[in-house]
Amino acid sequence: MTKKNRMILNLLLSPAGSHRGAWRHPDTRLEELHDIRHYHRLARLAEQARIDSLFLADGLSVEVEAVRHGPILSFEPLTLLSSIASVTEHIGLIATASTTFGEPYHTARFFSSLDAISGGRAGWNIVTTGVERTAYNFGLAGLPPHALRYERASEFTEVVLKLWDSWEEGALVQDQAAGLYADPAKVHEICHEGVHFSVRGALNAVRCPQGRPLLVQAGASEEGRNLAARFAEMIFTVQPTLEEARAFYRDIKRRTALAGRSPERLKVLPGLLVNVGATEAEAEQKAAELRAIVSVERSVMSLSNLLGMDFSAYSLDDPFPPLPEPQDVNAYHSFHALVRGITSQERLTIREFVHKHWSGSGQLAVTGTPKQVADVMEAWFLGGAADGFNVMPQLAFGGVEAFLGLVVPELQRRGLFPDRYTGRTLRENLGLEGL
Amino acid sequence: MTKKNRMILNLLLSPAGSHRGAWRHPDTRLEELHDIRHYHRLARLAEQARIDSLFLADGLSVEVEAVRHGPILSFEPLTLLSSIASVTEHIGLIATASTTFGEPYHTARFFSSLDAISGGRAGWNIVTTGVERTAYNFGLAGLPPHALRYERASEFTEVVLKLWDSWEEGALVQDQAAGLYADPAKVHEICHEGVHFSVRGALNAVRCPQGRPLLVQAGASEEGRNLAARFAEMIFTVQPTLEEARAFYRDIKRRTALAGRSPERLKVLPGLLVNVGATEAEAEQKAAELRAIVSVERSVMSLSNLLGMDFSAYSLDDPFPPLPEPQDVNAYHSFHALVRGITSQERLTIREFVHKHWSGSGQLAVTGTPKQVADVMEAWFLGGAADGFNVMPQLAFGGVEAFLGLVVPELQRRGLFPDRYTGRTLRENLGLEGL
Repeated sequence: MTKKNRMILNLLLSPAGSHRGAWRHPDTRLEELHDIRHYHRLARLAEQARIDSLFLADGLSVEVEAVRHGPILSFEPLTLLSSIASVTEHIGLIATASTTFGEPYHTARFFSSLDAISGGRAGWNIVTTGVERTAYNFGLAGLPPHALRYERASEFTEVVLKLWDSWEEGALVQDQAAGLYADPAKVHEICHEGVHFSVRGALNAVRCPQGRPLLVQAGASEEGRNLAARFAEMIFTVQPTLEEARAFYRDIKRRTALAGRSPERLKVLPGLLVNVGATEAEAEQKAAELRAIVSVERSVMSLSNLLGMDFSAYSLDDPFPPLPEPQDVNAYHSFHALVRGITSQERLTIREFVHKHWSGSGQLAVTGTPKQVADVMEAWFLGGAADGFNVMPQLAFGGVEAFLGLVVPELQRRGLFPDRYTGRTLRENLGLEGL
Repeated sequence: MTKKNRMILNLLLSPAGSHRGAWRHPDTRLEELHDIRHYHRLARLAEQARIDSLFLADGLSVEVEAVRHGPILSFEPLTLLSSIASVTEHIGLIATASTTFGEPYHTARFFSSLDAISGGRAGWNIVTTGVERTAYNFGLAGLPPHALRYERASEFTEVVLKLWDSWEEGALVQDQAAGLYADPAKVHEICHEGVHFSVRGALNAVRCPQGRPLLVQAGASEEGRNLAARFAEMIFTVQPTLEEARAFYRDIKRRTALAGRSPERLKVLPGLLVNVGATEAEAEQKAAELRAIVSVERSVMSLSNLLGMDFSAYSLDDPFPPLPEPQDVNAYHSFHALVRGITSQERLTIREFVHKHWSGSGQLAVTGTPKQVADVMEAWFLGGAADGFNVMPQLAFGGVEAFLGLVVPELQRRGLFPDRYTGRTLRENLGLEGL
């Protein structure tokens, strides 16, 4: 298997699983959901199966009413992954951090530290944060407009890269006899003066093992795609159908080339909400169990957050209300367009929309046997729709094991996925080094 | 041994040790200074000796010329301690985080996460940051004035406490049958509107094991003492003599009572720069070796940072220049007063000052046999000068082992220090629970 013809697999870590009803499933061990050992266990299992990386989504707010409907992660991603780094050796560790509610100096340092702690396995998922209430936790009257958030994100990323580069390779001398620890000529104040940021200093950490931790992105709006094309090495994307995924894949690779980078340098990973069973009947039964326990109210809350729309005036059996024009929306533009497309073509109540389209947050969702799941993955991978997948097992308890134990070996048998780590760092393992 | 008559021991983690020349000592293994396993090893050793807590100092800037003279920590404290949490079980984990260059929502969340990861062992050392150049890394033209930094620190801490309390105990219900994960009636938006901060939401994490991670403080100015008296449960302090330490101890306990808290609730830990040898000759030899390799230039740089004074116009053999009036200083007020006191009484050159008073940053420094070191500690502890010590071995390689292996058993033999952890959390182990 060459670097180019193998799939990349990332595992999304989620307390009970990526199905909104997962915490109510009888296989879920509730007492472990806020226990670090649960995450250590999942990470070790993923590493044994040679998964490329673990990923933690993140937000910076909580809707009080939503706590009723399911767990929130008790752990902040950078600290959680630092903990996981100590019980793993090879797997990549990708944390989300916001550019709207952060400072480049802190962010550069945290990821440099995670990279140092893990021996070169850190990745940063750059997000702009689209949930309005987050602004109120950081002294703002509201979320900055979408375009401004991306403008800030772009400059933020530039500053972080400058800080990571502020220590040249070879700056560390450690000459005891001469009394020269590091060479000041190879440590540079960045003196950044921009529109959003003014940052003078060098980073207060020696160059980290990867030099630059991996850059990851997940925005799919016009601005999000351009940010990814310019900086990202991995993009997580929500693509419900092969056709849409292909169009996205072509578009983002084209933009990457236009940004002056080899399209090979940006790996496209659609989300894959997966429920695998040894038999079709077993998988179907799990799916039915989950449908029966999911909270439609919780699903509407998350819709409301992502669309920046208030659904409280509607009952679940009202027709799905008309969505505002994109220019009037200051939340997740690409998601808004997706929902607008569906609801303008299908006449659905809110409840019907949730059951049909929203159990998996609009992701590609596959329920079936290992062979059926691998068939879909192979078709997308070979069909120009994906360089790999952001795997989201519906259930963390049992579902992760099923994917790792049944689907990964099937992909390996087909020669689509490697059976061991060959690189020293995350970027080397992904085949991105030297591209 | 009751809770009241035993010493508290904290170990300061430092790459090569707390003597500025430590990295040049032949016992220092240079290849480990930026390797996480070095810190894991020290943490495990400290836990085997039943040290109460580990502490990481921190800054948010680096002076390029200073990199020449010794290592900086490659790791950010919260991520480093999250990593250490995974290889230890009992020892407390105290990270420094700045209130001048941070946001309460982030800080509350990071420490809540460290507390959850470690099962209730997190502590936050609240600092206001007194190094001017830090401001330039965060878009400011200069450091806010001393009084304003402390005013902000006070409100910052209030907001963090509100966020930690935003999830009541018992908010987590996890009733699968009823579909009630957490009780929204026990999760509260804090709706803080203050002078420096406006923060509306609840924390996006369930209540952490300690509820409130331990609050630690190290400022010794008027404002620093008042902040400690109001909030802190542990204070790190620089006290060169028993007499000064006693006066500080009395003063801070008095202020704590005035702030309406039991003086028992604030534990006073002077820094103890220590160099212990099996024999006096062995300890003296290490001390001589260190004196021979320390960089006076580096020492002057750190003086310059802490005093907010430029020494570049002076040679090392010039008389120590007169210090400005305290009201004209916007750096570390208490340190300024300490140096002013010494230099106004003794006629010293800059070099002489460094050799006599500044190898240990003004801390109590003890070189000697285990018995000699324990004698000083016992005298301070029983003499009303200390509830324990912030132990700073001059050498991380060998020096930590010597303190843990020789001094700690001596203190245990004297009944001054316990030989096992009895609590579940850091606060319980410190005997602070239920005071």
